Amino acid sequence: MIRNSTQIICNSVTKWIPKVTVRNLSAVTNALVNVEVNDKTGISLVTINRKPVNGLSLELFEALSTTLDDLENDKTRGAVLTSGCASVFSAGFDLNELYKPDAERFRKFWMAFQNVWLKLYGSTFPTAAAINGHAPAGGCFLAISCEYRVMCPNYNIGLNETRLGIVAPIFLRASLRNTISQREAEKALTFGTLYSTDKALRIGLIDEIANDKAEAIQKCENFLAQFRNVSAMARSFTKTSLRKKDLEELENGREDDFQSFWSRLIQPEVQTQIGEYLQSLKKK
Amino acid sequence: MIRNSTQIICNSVTKWIPKVTVRNLSAVTNALVNVEVNDKTGISLVTINRKPVNGLSLELFEALSTTLDDLENDKTRGAVLTSGCASVFSAGFDLNELYKPDAERFRKFWMAFQNVWLKLYGSTFPTAAAINGHAPAGGCFLAISCEYRVMCPNYNIGLNETRLGIVAPIFLRASLRNTISQREAEKALTFGTLYSTDKALRIGLIDEIANDKAEAIQKCENFLAQFRNVSAMARSFTKTSLRKKDLEELENGREDDFQSFWSRLIQPEVQTQIGEYLQSLKKK
Amino acid sequence: MIRNSTQIICNSVTKWIPKVTVRNLSAVTNALVNVEVNDKTGISLVTINRKPVNGLSLELFEALSTTLDDLENDKTRGAVLTSGCASVFSAGFDLNELYKPDAERFRKFWMAFQNVWLKLYGSTFPTAAAINGHAPAGGCFLAISCEYRVMCPNYNIGLNETRLGIVAPIFLRASLRNTISQREAEKALTFGTLYSTDKALRIGLIDEIANDKAEAIQKCENFLAQFRNVSAMARSFTKTSLRKKDLEELENGREDDFQSFWSRLIQPEVQTQIGEYLQSLKKK
Repeated sequence: MIRNSTQIICNSVTKWIPKVTVRNLSAVTNALVNVEVNDKTGISLVTINRKPVNGLSLELFEALSTTLDDLENDKTRGAVLTSGCASVFSAGFDLNELYKPDAERFRKFWMAFQNVWLKLYGSTFPTAAAINGHAPAGGCFLAISCEYRVMCPNYNIGLNETRLGIVAPIFLRASLRNTISQREAEKALTFGTLYSTDKALRIGLIDEIANDKAEAIQKCENFLAQFRNVSAMARSFTKTSLRKKDLEELENGREDDFQSFWSRLIQPEVQTQIGEYLQSLKKK
Repeated sequence: MIRNSTQIICNSVTKWIPKVTVRNLSAVTNALVNVEVNDKTGISLVTINRKPVNGLSLELFEALSTTLDDLENDKTRGAVLTSGCASVFSAGFDLNELYKPDAERFRKFWMAFQNVWLKLYGSTFPTAAAINGHAPAGGCFLAISCEYRVMCPNYNIGLNETRLGIVAPIFLRASLRNTISQREAEKALTFGTLYSTDKALRIGLIDEIANDKAEAIQKCENFLAQFRNVSAMARSFTKTSLRKKDLEELENGREDDFQSFWSRLIQPEVQTQIGEYLQSLKKK
Repeated sequence: MIRNSTQIICNSVTKWIPKVTVRNLSAVTNALVNVEVNDKTGISLVTINRKPVNGLSLELFEALSTTLDDLENDKTRGAVLTSGCASVFSAGFDLNELYKPDAERFRKFWMAFQNVWLKLYGSTFPTAAAINGHAPAGGCFLAISCEYRVMCPNYNIGLNETRLGIVAPIFLRASLRNTISQREAEKALTFGTLYSTDKALRIGLIDEIANDKAEAIQKCENFLAQFRNVSAMARSFTKTSLRKKDLEELENGREDDFQSFWSRLIQPEVQTQIGEYLQSLKKK
């Protein structure tokens, strides 16, 4: 039913959707990101696969960026984002990118990060996250840039940047505000709270709970399947219009956003914290 | 108690409200929109009456626009909007305005639509909708431009434009965001969801449920009556200040808003959809 | 445990917080505002003490403004705002400032009011309000400019300005919108609703209920204590970033904001209302 595919036949599921009879899906699968298309539904399953914890490195951001371009070009019916790592959706930034950073590489890293958000949050195709593990910081970023979130029990999710001495950039704050209330967003961001699956459901940070990864993916597909009776063009125009101000705010301030994070990152006390934290992880 | 009236005596109901002893209510009643003033409360009951389903045509928008001007000039204490059609509050745009549209007439139609929203959403007098029937698309627009909504059971309400291949304009999205959360608004608009009365109450799209039209009107009047102890000038200034950004966004972009809808409307595939839909309605 | 203090020893409670070993707390206590620092937690208890009802006068605003500067300069770990008056947190503006106002003094009064909001809403240190009594209008303003609210039972809170014929300024509306939903904020402001403690909790206007003042202060301190594991710099940058647009809106329009209130205040009918209200209070 689900297979790697370079060409799929897509019956128009409703007369309201512009007819598409044949689509060429280019090979978007690479070492770090795997794409499978369900040829029955036309929905793409995007699996992030950078062992052991899907640490977000420059290379992973670039792979994600390419994948999102391909999905856009191939006019996918929808995408479900999930993780190939056991018990971790994504642990967030690869701390090696943050510790003693090389100025040139870090600029590329940050621009790639911005690109992934612009393409994921602003995608014309509908998106859902099957959160099959912990999703702190950058893990939460991937989830809240989608349009729907289903999470497995007993994991944590949140923008916990302040706990690491850093600050979630303006565009992540926009994604969070698009998901939960302004009041909850202020508390979540200043505390850097990591919410349990149950608590995340209660404040609206996720939409549903699933028992396991397969069920999470199924529930995401059910969400996307509800767009069957909706005009794809009208839907995508509506989505991007609603998210337009957030997208424009970053597009008009990418360098400021970079400088804001960079100037703080290279403070000696922040570097010391990250170094100590890296040490503590290595001991584990 | 309720009567057509050209002149009403209005006792100031509280010392905080600027004294108004006599008001001239011009004849705002016309074939399509009927206005009755409750001479005890000073509240106007505005009944939309374009059989069979209150389809929003150029003429109906013009009648509503005139009515809103008259209510404003006559300093009404408040207005309750309801429908004279059985089981339909308003079915939304008259599809004859959208199918094979004449460019000149459609421009007038759209400008009249914008005017009604600017006058209703930005009215200085308080407003409430007694939703005594289905309220899809333009029907929902009328309801969410008011300040309060009471709905009868077993009907549907929602901005279901994407189901018809079209896109709800920016100002309807503003009204929806003023009513429900950003998260719910994104889902409601991309899915084009029609909510049952019960579900609409749950997400905050309506404020109360009433058993029938009379009770819905009564509950709307109860809502408006609570403004008795409030300074009318301070209240109206507060309301328009809160809605100012939304109003200005349209005022500064009326032509863009028109072009955005028009350019999409005249696409052949959209016209085909509307034509097929019109055919299917005629067969019923 | 709690004492007036000019010098406190502050152990860094976590390695993530920049080390601060000794802090000089200048004498910020004055006749109208009293500051006590808990030397165990480093949290400042700010007690407003203008008998009988903490009426907000020019002098009280100036005292609060100085206090907030001192707390900022002294890098307090956090501040709890409470009242020294029995059963009243603050009754709002001292009506003597509003009745037959002297133009020059009133300008100073209003600028001091703006200053207090800019410094309290935009403080880099975390804040909480222990609302040990009624908090109408300006009382509510102080509470919603903080980051957390604990209230004692059977009191009222709300921005009830429209009931007095005046309009809550744009920056109070911003604080309210930062606390409750857009829908609730519109109703709260147009009605000028005073919410009971229970109802305030239900709509999110307060966060917790406490049996008495001591418990309210304790719960506020518990809230602030949760920032122990958070980088103080990252937290304060995150907070002020989130509130930046609101702060800038006032900073860029202070004179407009003043004129807007002033032009309405000096209307004869508004002065008459305030005069009558003052008379009625004197009779009590």
